[in-house]
Amino acid sequence: MQSDHSAARPVGRGAKVRAAVHAATLAELVDKGYAALSVENVAQRAGVHKTTVYRRWEDRESLLTDALAEHMAMDIPVPDTGAIETDLRALARSLVQSFTSPAGQAVLAAMFTGAAHLPEIAAARRHVFDDRLTRAEPVVTRAIERGELVGDTDPAELFKTLAAPIYLRLLITADPVDEATADQAVRVTLAAAHAGALRLAPASEPVTG
Amino acid sequence: MQSDHSAARPVGRGAKVRAAVHAATLAELVDKGYAALSVENVAQRAGVHKTTVYRRWEDRESLLTDALAEHMAMDIPVPDTGAIETDLRALARSLVQSFTSPAGQAVLAAMFTGAAHLPEIAAARRHVFDDRLTRAEPVVTRAIERGELVGDTDPAELFKTLAAPIYLRLLITADPVDEATADQAVRVTLAAAHAGALRLAPASEPVTG
Repeated sequence: MQSDHSAARPVGRGAKVRAAVHAATLAELVDKGYAALSVENVAQRAGVHKTTVYRRWEDRESLLTDALAEHMAMDIPVPDTGAIETDLRALARSLVQSFTSPAGQAVLAAMFTGAAHLPEIAAARRHVFDDRLTRAEPVVTRAIERGELVGDTDPAELFKTLAAPIYLRLLITADPVDEATADQAVRVTLAAAHAGALRLAPASEPVTG
Repeated sequence: MQSDHSAARPVGRGAKVRAAVHAATLAELVDKGYAALSVENVAQRAGVHKTTVYRRWEDRESLLTDALAEHMAMDIPVPDTGAIETDLRALARSLVQSFTSPAGQAVLAAMFTGAAHLPEIAAARRHVFDDRLTRAEPVVTRAIERGELVGDTDPAELFKTLAAPIYLRLLITADPVDEATADQAVRVTLAAAHAGALRLAPASEPVTG
């Protein structure tokens, strides 16, 4: 706790600056898009000097990937409704909502078109997805405990099945993405789970020579 | 047929030039990537003058999208094995193979990273996907005729369910994509179809005032 440590304020200030700069980055993305994003504009919007930004982020790319990763990591609450179907529906609808809000659309455009060529963006996409998977695992664990899913259900496989049709529509087919998309993803995922198609792969037999 | 039309050769030559330029575009992509792609290098590789390229394509972007659309439209044969499971397995494995070959990897990198910011690329992704859906529809029609799927199975929904986990792994999670991925996609899709989760939506009731 170190309550005698009077230097706590600078840490608080640092966190506030970070949050303000992240928010300004997203706001600039929403208003003007990735191509027009600049450290100058972000600094001005956040009310800080641009050297303050450069002290924390090397360039606009590292600022962008940091802001996107933080935005995406925070926006999906993990539900606990007492039933797997309503938990999955809440998760899928949150995912849909996170990508269809104005901020979500700007994030999507930056991650998958404007800034898609940045290697850090590919890493951020993977990282955010893995992080969401890990945080959502209790949804599957609890469903197994309630007897709604078989004990060897693979949480990662289940969440990938849930998310895949949403991403396909966002990134490839450009079909409308809405609550119906989320609910349809839940139906497919539960059908697959109940049919035993989402089980952990058995450990491979060791190859003996 | 117009067999007396002696000007057939120029048409043939045009098609040959197109094919050679498309092939050279893909080869340049595979060898050097999107950033280094130039009309000059493509023309040299195809053995034509660069004015020949510019006569048919306005710039490297239209050349690229044209070559990618043609490449992707041609690479997925529609199977007819006599059973829905083996048909879907063949389709899913073809899709996996088309994206994991050296040419497929280069196409994927161009469409989803290097050139992802081009509006024509988004249109090409949608177009190619829709085109594949339409061509694969007989797979579902035949399965319905054989009594393997219920009559109101939605072919588009079924193929999206099949393709979605493959695209998710290619574009987001960067998990390995191989025959096991394809076969797993088939298991999930068939489980969903048999559970009635891939049916055509009933036509909405007309709203009466």
